[in-house]
Amino acid sequence: MLSKEKNEYITRVGTGTPMGNLMRQYWLPVMLSHEVPEPDCDPVRVMMLGEKLIGFRDTSGQVGLIADGCPHRGASLFFGRNEENGIRCVYHGWKFDRTGTCVDMPNEPADSMFKTKVRARTYPCVERIGVVWAYLGPRADPPPMPDLEVFDVPEDEVEVVAAMRDCNWLQGMEGDLDTCHVNFLHRGAIKAEDLTPGTEEFYMAAEKAPRYKYTETEYGAMYGAYRPAGPGELYWRVAQFLFPCFTHIPRNARQAVDTRLWVPMDDYHTMYYLLRRRPQNEPASNGRFVLSADTAIRKDNSTDWYGRFRLEASADNDYLIDRDKQRRMVSYTGMAGAWTEDHAITESMGPIMARESEHLGSSDVMLTRVRRRLIDAASALADDNTAPPGVDKPGVYRTRSASIILPADTDWLEGTAAMRTASPAGER
Amino acid sequence: MLSKEKNEYITRVGTGTPMGNLMRQYWLPVMLSHEVPEPDCDPVRVMMLGEKLIGFRDTSGQVGLIADGCPHRGASLFFGRNEENGIRCVYHGWKFDRTGTCVDMPNEPADSMFKTKVRARTYPCVERIGVVWAYLGPRADPPPMPDLEVFDVPEDEVEVVAAMRDCNWLQGMEGDLDTCHVNFLHRGAIKAEDLTPGTEEFYMAAEKAPRYKYTETEYGAMYGAYRPAGPGELYWRVAQFLFPCFTHIPRNARQAVDTRLWVPMDDYHTMYYLLRRRPQNEPASNGRFVLSADTAIRKDNSTDWYGRFRLEASADNDYLIDRDKQRRMVSYTGMAGAWTEDHAITESMGPIMARESEHLGSSDVMLTRVRRRLIDAASALADDNTAPPGVDKPGVYRTRSASIILPADTDWLEGTAAMRTASPAGER
Amino acid sequence: MLSKEKNEYITRVGTGTPMGNLMRQYWLPVMLSHEVPEPDCDPVRVMMLGEKLIGFRDTSGQVGLIADGCPHRGASLFFGRNEENGIRCVYHGWKFDRTGTCVDMPNEPADSMFKTKVRARTYPCVERIGVVWAYLGPRADPPPMPDLEVFDVPEDEVEVVAAMRDCNWLQGMEGDLDTCHVNFLHRGAIKAEDLTPGTEEFYMAAEKAPRYKYTETEYGAMYGAYRPAGPGELYWRVAQFLFPCFTHIPRNARQAVDTRLWVPMDDYHTMYYLLRRRPQNEPASNGRFVLSADTAIRKDNSTDWYGRFRLEASADNDYLIDRDKQRRMVSYTGMAGAWTEDHAITESMGPIMARESEHLGSSDVMLTRVRRRLIDAASALADDNTAPPGVDKPGVYRTRSASIILPADTDWLEGTAAMRTASPAGER
Repeated sequence: MLSKEKNEYITRVGTGTPMGNLMRQYWLPVMLSHEVPEPDCDPVRVMMLGEKLIGFRDTSGQVGLIADGCPHRGASLFFGRNEENGIRCVYHGWKFDRTGTCVDMPNEPADSMFKTKVRARTYPCVERIGVVWAYLGPRADPPPMPDLEVFDVPEDEVEVVAAMRDCNWLQGMEGDLDTCHVNFLHRGAIKAEDLTPGTEEFYMAAEKAPRYKYTETEYGAMYGAYRPAGPGELYWRVAQFLFPCFTHIPRNARQAVDTRLWVPMDDYHTMYYLLRRRPQNEPASNGRFVLSADTAIRKDNSTDWYGRFRLEASADNDYLIDRDKQRRMVSYTGMAGAWTEDHAITESMGPIMARESEHLGSSDVMLTRVRRRLIDAASALADDNTAPPGVDKPGVYRTRSASIILPADTDWLEGTAAMRTASPAGER
Repeated sequence: MLSKEKNEYITRVGTGTPMGNLMRQYWLPVMLSHEVPEPDCDPVRVMMLGEKLIGFRDTSGQVGLIADGCPHRGASLFFGRNEENGIRCVYHGWKFDRTGTCVDMPNEPADSMFKTKVRARTYPCVERIGVVWAYLGPRADPPPMPDLEVFDVPEDEVEVVAAMRDCNWLQGMEGDLDTCHVNFLHRGAIKAEDLTPGTEEFYMAAEKAPRYKYTETEYGAMYGAYRPAGPGELYWRVAQFLFPCFTHIPRNARQAVDTRLWVPMDDYHTMYYLLRRRPQNEPASNGRFVLSADTAIRKDNSTDWYGRFRLEASADNDYLIDRDKQRRMVSYTGMAGAWTEDHAITESMGPIMARESEHLGSSDVMLTRVRRRLIDAASALADDNTAPPGVDKPGVYRTRSASIILPADTDWLEGTAAMRTASPAGER
Repeated sequence: MLSKEKNEYITRVGTGTPMGNLMRQYWLPVMLSHEVPEPDCDPVRVMMLGEKLIGFRDTSGQVGLIADGCPHRGASLFFGRNEENGIRCVYHGWKFDRTGTCVDMPNEPADSMFKTKVRARTYPCVERIGVVWAYLGPRADPPPMPDLEVFDVPEDEVEVVAAMRDCNWLQGMEGDLDTCHVNFLHRGAIKAEDLTPGTEEFYMAAEKAPRYKYTETEYGAMYGAYRPAGPGELYWRVAQFLFPCFTHIPRNARQAVDTRLWVPMDDYHTMYYLLRRRPQNEPASNGRFVLSADTAIRKDNSTDWYGRFRLEASADNDYLIDRDKQRRMVSYTGMAGAWTEDHAITESMGPIMARESEHLGSSDVMLTRVRRRLIDAASALADDNTAPPGVDKPGVYRTRSASIILPADTDWLEGTAAMRTASPAGER
């Protein structure tokens, strides 16, 4: 559990908050490239870290991200004209390029110098694998992008998914750091006796209460959950937290290139991104941006601040729970699949879960430690302006999760090292 | 009128408030039995005294009431599995029985003692005449149930109604303690000359401004409203307030077994229950749980916190007022009947009516006195832990309202004593 | 820009606020006469200056305006009976006439004097040109009505429009004091070369950055925006602010009788009224109360507090923006016309725009000065009870805006004096 004060500290990400300042040290996904499909396309409302922003693609093809309110008198630039390498407010014609420079102020006399004194708040953006990344931080020269292995995956094997959650980012991310929920929430209806003995799935189902090892890393933290496998063997599932809000979770499929990112839209809404190489045992999905191999249905995007990448299953419809299927153990939850289940459970904790009321067990060691690391990093930034983990070391992000059966006496870090090693940059 | 401070004091019922603590000393209705119709049925969301609770019926047929958030990490138990005498959180499989004991914690190692250290917040429940009653108070051994006469009514003559109001409980209940509104809100279009002379209805219509007597009682308070009847006679209508939120109102039908209960869901929503013996002059209603003999239409229940026992007529549709019928005096209000009228008027006062702006007249003496009694009882509980009226004396609830014509010189308490006497417990 | 404190000071208008007190010194429009079409018609909910009021027309034909909550116990008088020169609460039959006198209290004994001690809060109303005006201020004898020229316009030439905005009144009104936005928001797609040289429209389009003169006046303030016209000529557009929330904006049509009023419903909603003589170059509109010559569509009124005179185009539908028309410069905004554009832009600034973040240019001099005048007048009222400008001098309101081409060396005040002179009262 956390005190109320520490829970506020770790969950709030608006302008000027300690955790908001920590998040702003990093490049983070802000939207998908296809949301601004072509030069001079329609502007898009994007909420990020509590800031109302307008995304657009300018005439040169570069993506811009600008504060919603015009610096002049606060009119929304969403209604602006995206034209000739800038966005123009329709109230008085002021125009800003994607760097925030005011490039036209046609209601001022030609000899006025006022134009040079006004800047719009904008943030630098880059695009990788169909995702727009933004840096909302204070550095004039942004730090390097994290060196994620998924950036090197061939385009036709990359899968990118975005999905919005109506809850705080931390409780979303904590689901990824909690391996044992898989055996209940997602696989509670599966019995070991129905699985092939000797498989990882079989060992998972046979022992639902693994034990845990934990270690800190340059990029954040890592844990290994272990349980009995064959005689003299242990089955290890190793997952990672990467600053400030990324995870790698173990995949039974061995070649895991799979990064998950929990980007706060504001304190009560999160945009979750999944960037991965499509596992070889899964069929190609229908187009590049899909909702994974799940029966979850996604609604069409709308133009409002909270209208992007929403699931049809929501709190308003009890996540389409089928009580009869739940009762007959067709599934443990009666819900459509893992996506819906994760959404439902984390949202059901409330907009910001009350960590002062928790009762954490031995399976929650990773949560406790990661919270402490986040708080420590935010405090170090606040107190001494210490650059937080990974910001200036992009290479530390080049790692993988692991899922492996090892002899019982093998050290887990040594035994999983090879599997955790990402391919060198530029190679497969 | 009340000061703003006292109005807050008397209306707020959340955890830790003085009036909330007072309410929690008593058994109160929490839902209808048919909402959890059978063992292991679907869980139900129930809001009560500002607490989010999940109602369920376990395998043994007993009703349970458990706090919504799982003690582990706060996931909603509404999505839980109601199975084998307990409700199981689908996140990590923790299971609690209706006493709050953790009976299974399958994600912890078998040798863990953690299970014994975790309890869920649950409340004891009992069922009477199709109503689930709960005790949300601090005693390990709950006090006895109030000895209401309606509990002894033969099953085929009992009527139970629940209806939600979108306003604070006190302004709802105050309508029951205010006899003279009946002559306006409900019967304002009725003229004495159209009624049979000598009947109680006739005398009510003939004098719309009765005078009042008041007395305190062991169960709470009682008033008598009196007005001229035949020569040398007075017509008395006697009503009762019973701690903490129950009323008996006068019925023209003489054999009144009729208790009304104003149970706070939270500070802004109230579940009103009517428990009565069906008057002999009324036809049997369509099934046991009906909405009284009124044209009010009730919506189907939904699963959300505020979706139970709602009227179709609501603030959103101006309570379906028919202005033409109002203008032509088809009814005084243009609304469908007394249920709708009471809903409309009390909700129209606002979520919590501003008692600092009232102008109370002579008809409001009961309101003033009952407020004082409630505040005094809450203060005595807060200051000295004094058990409030009736908690440990269930027999005092065995009383009735009265409606009777008496010689003008008869003392009202003596003259109504026989009519106010309930049948002995166990008899008709 | 304004500090946060001053922005609060100038925008908030609820009971007891300095600016609310200033507004209450004046007669202000509260509804249209046709909303209470006949004696004893249905009551109407009206929100004004943060007060919930009920409008009604009594049996004598006079309009009444009474606080929503009955003085007795706060029940809404919207559900009351409008009958025999008063409105009667249906809860206990208390009846009040339009002066606030309690004329019937039928639930009190006939000999009670309580009736004389209770008054309802009511406000005096008068009707002019189809508009109901109310005085919400402290004077027992209200000040005179402002002597607006439009009151003398023949009935068949008067046009009255009301339209609600979902934002604070000040940012609405500031749009009228900002002449240069017209060239962008409303006419940004119009090029000078497509217009007839020598016309006012031509000169407007040819120079989008006029320069400004400002002067204070007895009724408030006035500015002149000037730009080149023919050789040795200037084209002047002169607009006025009239205390506390009225404007006269320049019309290219010369005989401008056109007053705009920005009446706060509450801090976040404004009812905008346009009172004018229909320009001779415009066709008669369809009935007296229309939405001007715009393609904006108005929704039917509903009975709720914010259901009157709403546009179909709203924030919920992005003001029906047509991005393709915007892109192809069919219009600058892609919206239906000037009404919709003004609504969209001022609402897009937020419920109360953050003036601490503004960057005001030379075109905003009128805004800066008018804000100062409003704050000074509110402070003088608060500090010394100084009656604010115009309250006791109704004649100062008899003025017009101007739009005129003058020799470059003519003083603007002298050169526009004749055009700014309204017709004498009672004449055309």
